[in-house]
Parts: sequence; structure tokens; C-alpha cells
Amino acid sequence: MNKDKLDPQNYVRTLEEENRRLHSLLQVTQSLSSILDLETLLFRIMDVVGENLQADRCTVFLLDEERNELWSKVAMGVRKEIRFPANKGIAGFVATTGEVLNIPDAYQDYRFNPEIDKKTGYHTKSILTMPMRNKRNEIIGVFQVLNKKEGAFTKADEELLQAISNIAAASIENAQLYEEQRKSFISFIETLSTTLDARDYITSGHSRRVTLYAVQVARLMRLPAKEVNLIRYAALLHDIGKLGVPEIVLFKNKKLTDDEYEIIKRHASLSMSILNKIHFQKDLRGIPLVAASHHEKIDGSGYPQGLKGDQIPLGGKILAVCDVFDALTSRRQYRDRMDIEKVMKILDNETGRAFEPFVVYHFKNIKLNILIEILEFGHNQELDKQDLALLQKYTLHDLLGIRAKSKKTEEEQRMENTFLRYYSRRYRD
Amino acid sequence: MNKDKLDPQNYVRTLEEENRRLHSLLQVTQSLSSILDLETLLFRIMDVVGENLQADRCTVFLLDEERNELWSKVAMGVRKEIRFPANKGIAGFVATTGEVLNIPDAYQDYRFNPEIDKKTGYHTKSILTMPMRNKRNEIIGVFQVLNKKEGAFTKADEELLQAISNIAAASIENAQLYEEQRKSFISFIETLSTTLDARDYITSGHSRRVTLYAVQVARLMRLPAKEVNLIRYAALLHDIGKLGVPEIVLFKNKKLTDDEYEIIKRHASLSMSILNKIHFQKDLRGIPLVAASHHEKIDGSGYPQGLKGDQIPLGGKILAVCDVFDALTSRRQYRDRMDIEKVMKILDNETGRAFEPFVVYHFKNIKLNILIEILEFGHNQELDKQDLALLQKYTLHDLLGIRAKSKKTEEEQRMENTFLRYYSRRYRD
Repeated sequence: MNKDKLDPQNYVRTLEEENRRLHSLLQVTQSLSSILDLETLLFRIMDVVGENLQADRCTVFLLDEERNELWSKVAMGVRKEIRFPANKGIAGFVATTGEVLNIPDAYQDYRFNPEIDKKTGYHTKSILTMPMRNKRNEIIGVFQVLNKKEGAFTKADEELLQAISNIAAASIENAQLYEEQRKSFISFIETLSTTLDARDYITSGHSRRVTLYAVQVARLMRLPAKEVNLIRYAALLHDIGKLGVPEIVLFKNKKLTDDEYEIIKRHASLSMSILNKIHFQKDLRGIPLVAASHHEKIDGSGYPQGLKGDQIPLGGKILAVCDVFDALTSRRQYRDRMDIEKVMKILDNETGRAFEPFVVYHFKNIKLNILIEILEFGHNQELDKQDLALLQKYTLHDLLGIRAKSKKTEEEQRMENTFLRYYSRRYRD
Repeated sequence: MNKDKLDPQNYVRTLEEENRRLHSLLQVTQSLSSILDLETLLFRIMDVVGENLQADRCTVFLLDEERNELWSKVAMGVRKEIRFPANKGIAGFVATTGEVLNIPDAYQDYRFNPEIDKKTGYHTKSILTMPMRNKRNEIIGVFQVLNKKEGAFTKADEELLQAISNIAAASIENAQLYEEQRKSFISFIETLSTTLDARDYITSGHSRRVTLYAVQVARLMRLPAKEVNLIRYAALLHDIGKLGVPEIVLFKNKKLTDDEYEIIKRHASLSMSILNKIHFQKDLRGIPLVAASHHEKIDGSGYPQGLKGDQIPLGGKILAVCDVFDALTSRRQYRDRMDIEKVMKILDNETGRAFEPFVVYHFKNIKLNILIEILEFGHNQELDKQDLALLQKYTLHDLLGIRAKSKKTEEEQRMENTFLRYYSRRYRD
């Protein structure tokens, strides 16, 4: 087979090594190919490379061709994204030239930038940097492996990384396609939702704000990510049935007749029948029912189905509260925002009749900085960071308590003034 | 390490075998993990298993939990789908019990149904059938491998198939997720498109029909699949800008004033600005421009941009022809369909001015069965199969020639009558 066979001991050693190598590669491949979520995948790749090359750490930089940048996800307490121009640093050199750089001592190499070590307190010794190529041999990113546990990176390390690189590239491209498709879907729904609301100044921005409130409440309730996601889509689409209501009734700015009101009420069941025609993914099948139940009331007096209590899906109960809160706090051409006390009084009166008490409870736990960001959605660049930091210390519940108190601390007074300044400001638009 | 080491020759053989096994598994994994398209993936898996197990053929059946069926794609000249109840046959037995069946001689086994061999002329000898399980150990499908090249399937074959099965299951689940997301996106756009058109009886079904025509033309022009796909989405969405036109103008059933006409014309640029807000995947980035150019004319007299000739994307030129053809052939409340000659005369008059000649040329090459299916979209269950078979032999171009002839063959006469019967029939709806 092979000349090594002449030296049996040597041949056995080669076979054993090859076996180990294939074994780890197979494990790597299997562990990567089952992940479709890009962020999870990147972290798994970095772990796997570090382990297999016996290195201290590995970073994968991906090439963003449109912005001509390299970016990566790093875990520093929280996971965050870092980005830099695609020709900068050692990673940039490799992304641009396609060369493999195996540097035994970073501080002896002119391309190494010691500034990063100074900032992070890390001490870089050896570096192995390699381009990652897809099936079409295009560079899609760069591996940067730091500090081999013993000595420098070997030729065998380079070969192993090369093999892992091919596997990783295939998985990354799949995950990117999946991610692009997901973004495409959500941005389509967001755009549609915004466009529908924008047909009338009264509803402009309504669905987007209801969505932001609903996601906050769902998170405060610690619902699982999949359920939060379903509620997000359902909120964006809850009024899609208005497409089936003639504009002449929908946008009438005088008092509606009983017949007209009945026609408007149809929008909830129309949302259901439109959304039922869509083939949603398994995890999102609940969207039509949640979206259509935003006018149901827990005492059974709502519409379209007159569902009672736990017959109403939780998402629907959340939408109901957020929908009314947004309607009450919207500016009208002929009036400013209603006083926050008055808004909350209306909400409280309906709690236990229309609204589920624990949903209202969680709604009141929304932090004031977030509440202002949602109320002022579309004008967020005009919010002051320090103001937001102050508001972040209080919830809507706190605010109502403080407003009712006669004696307030200096900070409470400042917070109240800050909140009201944003809550009641006006725009000419 | 291992007792075999005491017998060096035996140990080397074991190592060599293990080496080959790992090698093929690694190749299998790499070849499967890069495929995200379900159909391509299934065929690749079947090839790979056949090769690796030295078998004549392999079929992968997937479990459809909602319908409780097993299904597979098979290549018999064309690729087609087969389906049967999830507890039927040997595959059903394995899907239900989770057992592995290694049958050296099919005709000696009571579970084997020789009827299929009789139908296909194939002669089944050995069978290896194994459940495919995902990471959560749930059965998601069944492998059925037929006719080991020499003798029966061995224990080693079973082990190899088991290893491939795990890899295949991960890839299949990814491909299924991707496919579900894709279906979700297209069904959302189709539903929206249909809902928008349905606001007015005049436009009801319009975008769906324009889409069907446009896809036909694109295919007759042999455009690549990606471009056909882009044209499909752009066609479904070409009138989305009508969301920004007040219904009182959009649905006015008297003559429009000049001002009103200008307002209506805005829908094309509104389609562009709405669609530009959506984050489309790379291959679909051309959608906004194609959708927005369905009223451009090649002589530059169209709107919204007054583009000329090749400034108009090909997709836009296709939409322009299909859009007008559908408008001219739609039924109105106050009249039946316009004569097909009159329709084509209007189209011909505008060819070279509004329409690109080679697009009109390909439009006329649409087969009459397809033309009728599109014209009668929504009533397709009322079409007679024999009629369609007759119509399939002729194109729109043929029809116009035959209509102009004084002497027609008996078949031509029958075809003409058949076409006109569908073209001019009425519905009460």
C-alpha cells in the first residue's frame, strides 16, 4: 500500500494518528452540521477549534462584503459584535491576501498590533491565522487562533484547521442563508404592518408600538423565546383584517353608526381568516388565533368569538392590554396625550373584566425608559441618554406611586419631571 | 491499548478498516452538510447510501406527522413524490416499531409485499430497513436499502448505515426548517397579494394571474431559476403600492379626472418605496425595481421613471405585457371578456412602443391549456382533462393563425370551439 508498511511500527503509528484525526474531524463535522442558528454556530466553531488545536482561544471573523468589514461575535460577559475594516490587522491581512500566517511569537512580527493586548490585558504569544473559503473557493472569513498551549502551532495544526475550515464554511453558509430568509420574513411583515397603519394618521405607528409593548410584557413574564417570537408576529399582524374594511368606514372621523361599528368589528375575524391562509412554520401556527383575539375580554363580552378567561390565548390577553394602552396614549390631531393617571384608571377599571390582572401587573413593570422609547417610537434620536438612565431606575408602577405621594425625594421629582417632559411634548409633523 | 495489539497483523487490519470507515463517513458528512435544499439532499443521501453499502438502491422515506404518512422522492424519468400510510409495508413496520430489519431474502419474509415488484419489474432480494432518528431520538423517517451487490447485508453494513443515518437526520432537519421558512414567506406574499386584489371585484385575482403569466413567459425564455423566482415575487407584489392610494380614487367606477389619474399613477413608485424597505435576500434584491417598472414603456413614455429600452429590467418588461393582457381579458360586471383578436390587436399595436417585441413573441408561445388555466384561475376544477389535452397541442400564436384561416382541419375546429367555450363562459359569482 505504502512504503511505511516496510516499517511496521511506523506504519501502525501513522494509522493510529490518522484514526484519531479522522475521529475528531468527524465529531467536529457532526457537531457543526446540526446547527442552523448563526450565533450558536460561531461560538461552537470557536470552541471546537480551540479544543482541537490545543490553543487558548479562537476567533472567527466573517467577511461582510457589502460593508467591506470583518465582524465577529465575542463573549465578554455578554455576547457582543465587533467590526473593523476588512483590511485591518492580521485578520485583515489574511482576508485580503488569502495567505496563512503561522506566527510563533507575535511581538516579533511587524503586522501584530500590541494595542489590543494593552487594552484587554491579554498576552498574545503564538498566532495561527487562516482564511476560510467556501465551495467556490471564495474567502468568507478568517480564523484567528491564539496561544498554542505548548510551543508554537505546527504544520499538523495548520492541516487540521484547514480541514475544519472547509466544514465550518459549509455550515456557516447554510446558517447565513437561513438567517437572511428569516430577516426577509420579519422585515416584510414589519414593512406591511407600518404601511397599513400609515394609511391613516390616527393609526400611524400603532402596530409597531403594540408589538414593542407586547414583547416587553412577554419578556417580563419570562415566556420562552419561541412564544415571545410568536407574540411579536401576531402583534405586528393583529390589525391586518382592516384590509377588508372599506376605508370610508375605517377612517370616518365622525361618530360611527351602529352598522358602521359592526363593520369595523369585523376586522378581528378578518385578521383570523387572512392569517389562516398563510402556511406558518410549526412554532408560529398560533399566530392567527392570538392576532384575532385582541378584542376578546376575559368576562366573555369581547369579539369576534366572545371567548372567556382561559379560552383566550395568553398572547391575545397581552395584545388586548397593549392595544388599548396605545390607543389611549396616542396623540390626536385635536388633543394631546391623555394624562397618564387617566389612562391607567381606564385600564384598572377594565382589569378583571376585559383584561387579565396578571398581564396588567406585568405591563406596569415595564421600565420607564423603555416606555418612553416606545411612546416616542420614530423620535428616538431625540431622547437624551442621561434622561433614559434616570428613567431606567423606575417602572410605570413606581411612577404612579410617586405621582400620588406628597413628599418626594429630589431624584423622584427629577424623574417625574423628566417623564412628563417626554410624555407631553409636541411635534409638528 | 487493546488486546488486538497482541496480534499485530490483526491490529493493523482493524486499524485500516476503521480508517476506511472514518474516511467514507467524513466524506458523506461533508457532502451532505453543505446542502440546504431538501430534494437535492434526499437524492444525495440515497446515492451515498447505495454506494457506501454496495447496494443496488436506497430509498429514504420521511415521516409526515401531520398526515401520518411516509413519503419519498423517487426518480423515474422525472422526479416525483410517493406517499403511503405510515404503518404500511416494511418501511411502515420499521417506522412504527423502531426495529431494524435485515432481511437476506425478501420472498421468504411475510412482511414483504411482492406486488410492487410485479408492478415495477424489479426483483427484490435482500433488504435492510432502518429507522432514522433525530437528536431527540424521535423517528423522522426510514432508510430502505435494496439488493446488496454480493450476498446479504452484514452487521458492518448496519453499523455504517446507523452512522450515516445520524448525519443524514441532522441535515434533513435543517433542510426542512429552511423549506418551511421559504413556504411561509411565499404563502404570506401570496395571501397578501390576493387580499389586496380582493378589495375590489375588478382587480380580484389580478396579481395571481399576472404572476402565472409572467412565470410562463420567463420559463419560455429559459431564464435561470433564480430569475424566474424573482419575477414571481415581483409579480405578486407589483401593485402593493395601491395600499397608498385612497380607495375612493382607486375604486371609483366613473371616469377619473386628470388629478385622480395622477394619484393612481403613484402606485408604481409607491410599490418601489414600500418594497425598498424590505430586507430581501441577495438573489431577490431586484424585486423593488422589477415590481415598480410594470408601467414603463420601451419608448420612454411610461411611468414612474420614464425608463427607455434596456433601462427597464427584463422582469419589468414581462410584467408590463402580462399586466395589460390580464386587464384586457378580465371580465367586468357590465361586459364579458373582450374578443381575443381585439385583445391581441391592442397588444400588437403597442409592441415596439410600450412592449418589448421578444416578450410579446414568447407570450404568444404560451400553450392554450395553460392560458385557459390562468384565465380561469379559481375555477380550475371545472376544466375538462380531455379539453386541456387538446388545447395543449396549440399555442396562442397557433390559435390566432387558425382563427384567421378559412379552411381548418377537424381538430383545429374542435380546438377553436373548445378554447372559445372556456374563454367566453360566464359565472354567477
